[in-house]
Parts: sequence; C-alpha cells; structure tokens
Amino acid sequence: METAAEYAIGIDIGGTNTKFGIVNHRGDISNVGEISSTNHDDINDFIDELYAMIKPAIKSVGGLDVIKGIGLGAPNGNYYTGTIDYAPNLQWRGIIPIAKMITNKFNKPCTLTNDANAAAIGELMYGAARGMRDFIMITLGTGVGSGIVANGQLIYGHDGFAGELGHTIIRPGGRLHWGTGMKGSLETYASATGIVITAKEILAERVNEDSLLRKLSNEEITSKKICEAAIKGDTIANEVFQVTGHILGEALANFVMFSSPEAIILFGGVIKAGKLLLDPTRESMEKNLLPIFQNKVKLLFSELKESDAAILGASALVWEIKPEAVTSGGN
Amino acid sequence: METAAEYAIGIDIGGTNTKFGIVNHRGDISNVGEISSTNHDDINDFIDELYAMIKPAIKSVGGLDVIKGIGLGAPNGNYYTGTIDYAPNLQWRGIIPIAKMITNKFNKPCTLTNDANAAAIGELMYGAARGMRDFIMITLGTGVGSGIVANGQLIYGHDGFAGELGHTIIRPGGRLHWGTGMKGSLETYASATGIVITAKEILAERVNEDSLLRKLSNEEITSKKICEAAIKGDTIANEVFQVTGHILGEALANFVMFSSPEAIILFGGVIKAGKLLLDPTRESMEKNLLPIFQNKVKLLFSELKESDAAILGASALVWEIKPEAVTSGGN
Repeated sequence: METAAEYAIGIDIGGTNTKFGIVNHRGDISNVGEISSTNHDDINDFIDELYAMIKPAIKSVGGLDVIKGIGLGAPNGNYYTGTIDYAPNLQWRGIIPIAKMITNKFNKPCTLTNDANAAAIGELMYGAARGMRDFIMITLGTGVGSGIVANGQLIYGHDGFAGELGHTIIRPGGRLHWGTGMKGSLETYASATGIVITAKEILAERVNEDSLLRKLSNEEITSKKICEAAIKGDTIANEVFQVTGHILGEALANFVMFSSPEAIILFGGVIKAGKLLLDPTRESMEKNLLPIFQNKVKLLFSELKESDAAILGASALVWEIKPEAVTSGGN
Repeated sequence: METAAEYAIGIDIGGTNTKFGIVNHRGDISNVGEISSTNHDDINDFIDELYAMIKPAIKSVGGLDVIKGIGLGAPNGNYYTGTIDYAPNLQWRGIIPIAKMITNKFNKPCTLTNDANAAAIGELMYGAARGMRDFIMITLGTGVGSGIVANGQLIYGHDGFAGELGHTIIRPGGRLHWGTGMKGSLETYASATGIVITAKEILAERVNEDSLLRKLSNEEITSKKICEAAIKGDTIANEVFQVTGHILGEALANFVMFSSPEAIILFGGVIKAGKLLLDPTRESMEKNLLPIFQNKVKLLFSELKESDAAILGASALVWEIKPEAVTSGGN
C-alpha cells in the first residue's frame, strides 16, 4: 500500500523518437507515450509539444503536486550543466540548455544525463545491478554507449562526460568511424552499425562461400537479419558474432582492469543475439584479463524491457537528485 | 602550532627495498629509513626487522600514543582484504595477510593499498592533485601502475584491484609482456623496461645510423641513459621518447574517455625525460580524444619528491581510514 503517492516523469530523447512515461517508486510505468524528435527545428516547439502530450498524463495520476520531478536521458546530455552539447544525432545544434527549459515549462525540477548513464541508473534501481556498488553498463545499439558505477555512484567525471567507452580505441589504425573520423574505436565494431560492416567485409572476402545474407540487398543487411541468419546456422553470420565478440571482449577486459566491476551489463538491440554474442565475448574477455581478474566478473544481459528501460532509467534520476547536481540547467 | 601532535607511519614495500618514515598531518616526513625487501624468506622475519627499525622512530616522536596508524603501499596490495596477493616482484608467494600481521606486531591499525593507489592518495593530499575530485595517477617506473580518483574517492572496484591500467591492451597482438605473457599492454611500451626495448628495436632497425647509445653495451642501455642521450640531441634516443609518448598518449586518451578526469598526473623514474616525453604524449592524447574532451585535461608531472612520495602516499592512508576498509587484514 502506498501512502502519499509520488511519481517521476521519465523522458528519453532519441535520434528518432522521444518516449515518456510516469513512474512510481517501484518502477511501475504508466501513461507511456512518444513524439517525434525530428518534427521541430526549434527546440522550443519540441518542448511545447512534449508538454502538451504529458500534461494529461500528469493530470491522470493526480496533478503536479504528486510529481517529484522530471528525469531526462539524451545523447550527449551533461549531468552537471543540464545541457545537450553538440549531439551529432539530434537536429538541434550547439549547446541546448534543455534541463532549464523543461524545468521552466513544467515548473518541476528536471535532471539530465546521457542515455547510457540513465540506463545504468535504471539497471541499478530496478534491474540486474540491484545491490551492486561497482558495475559497467554497455549499451550496444546503433552506437555503443556506457555508464560506469563505482563505489555505488555514477562516474560523471570532471565535466560530466565520463563513460564514452564506445569511443575508446581498441584497434589502433583500425576501422574508420563514420561520425568521429577516428580509427578503430569500439563503436566501429560492436555497434549494430559496426556489425553490419563486419558482415559486409566477410561476405566480400569469401565470395565463393554461400550465405543466407547473400539473398539480401546491401541495404537489407541489418544486425537483426544477421542475427536471424546466425540462429539458422549460417556460417558467415555466426562468424560475424565471433569477430564482434572477440573485439568486444578485448575492450571489456580493458574496462575491467580500469574499475574492477562486479559485473558488466550489456543492453540494447544487439544483445538479441544472445549466446551467439555472449559466448565469444566472455571467452575473449577472460583471455585478456590478468589472472587476478579472471573468472570473477559477471557478464550479464540487462533485465529491463528495452521499451521501458530508457524511460525507467531517466525517471530514476529524479529519486537520485543530489544537491550538487544542477537541476535547473546551464547558466 | 600543533596541539596534540599525531603521526602516521608510512611504509612502502618495493621489490628491492622497503622504505618508511613518520609523517605528520602537514605531510612533513621524519625518521626516514629503509631495509631490504629480499633478505628474509619468511615474511615474519621481515616484519620483525621492520618493527626493530621503526621502534626507535616511534619513540623519538613521542611513543605509540601519538601514532594514529600505519599506512602500507605494496605491489598487488589489496585495500579490502589487507593482503598482498601473488605479487610477482616479491619473494613471498601466494596471499600474504600483511595488514593483519603488521597490526598485530605494532599494535596499531594498518591499512594497505597498492603502491600506485598510495601515490595517488599522496598526490591528492600533498601534491599536484590537491583539491581535485577526478584525476588519474600513472606511475611510470620499472612497470606502469595507476591510481584512479573519481567523485573524490579512490576507485578500488569490486575486489580491491581496480586501476591496473598498465596491463590494459593498447596494441592488440603487440609486444609480448615479460611477466604476464599478454601482448601489447601499456606496460610493455611505457615502462622503463619497455623504453629500453623500444630503444634496442630502433637501434637494430637502423644499423647504419649513429647514436650515443651504440657506445653502451646491451646491459648498459637503461631508460636513464636513453634520456641523457636524448637531452644531448641524439636522434635515436629522441625517437624512443616520440614513440613512447605516441603510444602512452593513445592509452591516456582511452582513460580520459572512461572517467573524464580533470588531470592525469605522471609519476616515477621515466618522467625525468620531461618535455621529451610530455610533448609527444600530450599531442597523441589530444589527437585521440573526442572533441568534447579535447584541450581540457591537464597533463601534469607529480609534485612530490620521488624519494618521499611512496612513504607520504602510504602514510596518507592512515588519515583516510574509513569504517568499511578492513584495517586489520584478511580473515
């Protein structure tokens, strides 16, 4: 039984859609909805539409009085400044003081963090990381993101941008990143985008070897299709996950030797590959660890429903609000 | 003016020598001394000699009543368990419950951590990291060690072994490590040992190019000699530091994208190379950072005198003692 019900609004801004929901302390989500992230050139218009959509949801749970605050996850979201800084996948350029803008519009404190950090907090409060003080969350989607928890706290770093593990270089001089121009970053191999590149490379190398993937046009080859082919026993598709796991495992070993986590939790579309990805990843990680770290780190998949996790993680920021966080955004 | 003077004993166990001193709250060291780390096969005999040596020092500052505790830095020292676990450079094999043994012998609480973590704490309290909440300490000596501070706390990780950045793989398939058997770890390139290997490789590649280093026998080539030759303008010796800085900078960029520190502080014998090492390291680090991290991270040399730093850092553990730390060692 709940007395004095209290809710948080969770908002997840993605490159395509922005999802929201109302969340209680137990992590139950209600009033889920979404709007397009790309319909408004002006961020003010975007926030106006978001407010118009969420207003009835607020009313339905008992009005603004029972809302403690708003948690927001967004690419390049900065916890300290409340700003989205130069997000390559969003149409709003430069530095956007979005936490302040939402605070003003909704008249409730809004806390921002990047999407992977939000997922880590969600996992800590409601998922596979409950009770853990040290873990690393790796999101394997279109890109590779990360959220790092050490000593029970999310690591934001000096300027709020800690945890960009997808951009660490794991193959110096390796694959060119389509966005950053850097070579050999983890994201170029372990993201859905990278997996497709790996598949096309292997298909091109082994022209005489048959594969279910050869029935698809160049544009039809997605990480999902590769996964489906691998499950059906396709040799080349299986090889793609072997290669991906091999490289991901090397990267994870490096991360383990940094912060010595109890677990690494994998999250995002790519984990649908299940054991096909997990087994080679674990094998490669263990092989690249010093003996003192071997056979200790749990390699887990997220326990959160992917559709809910982003909202849940963002909403969890509200219960986490700390005095030192800038909850009203930039200057 | 000090009222109720209080002191900490700092002990640094190294592969060759064990140094100690008595330290006050301001970081002033007195009664410095050292014993050999290799004279006693039995760890009990080693502790007996250490106690015999430190006893007069304790007396000279006012007896056991004014000693708050003992801080101990040692390779593979584990903060949580108070044990030295399988240290490859020490003669005592297996797991040594040294914090408990010293606590019992001295009748004062002893806190243990690894040597690089001790240096980081020393830097935080008395050196270049004063006032910082997020920094990484990299020790460049015979090996490469690290201590990571985030949110104002040392990162020990789940099992106390966090911060083994010297063993992260920075060149997959690269140089074989003489001790771990792993290939391409940072230590194989950026340690004094690695620098000597790099020098010998370049000397072998460019047999027709003269160098001051060719006047030395194979055994005489040390990182110190390479440094001296580089300062005199020797091309090959300079190239050695260029190569070392290039690889070190790549590794530092990865570390920055992990924890987004305010500064990286370099420490240890190798930093005597000064600008010869610092300039190429900084250039390479910046080149390998995402734009949001560029031109933000201070790359600094330690401000602590190398001879004192280990003792100072170990002693600082005493003022840091937290309830959750096991101060009396193992089970």
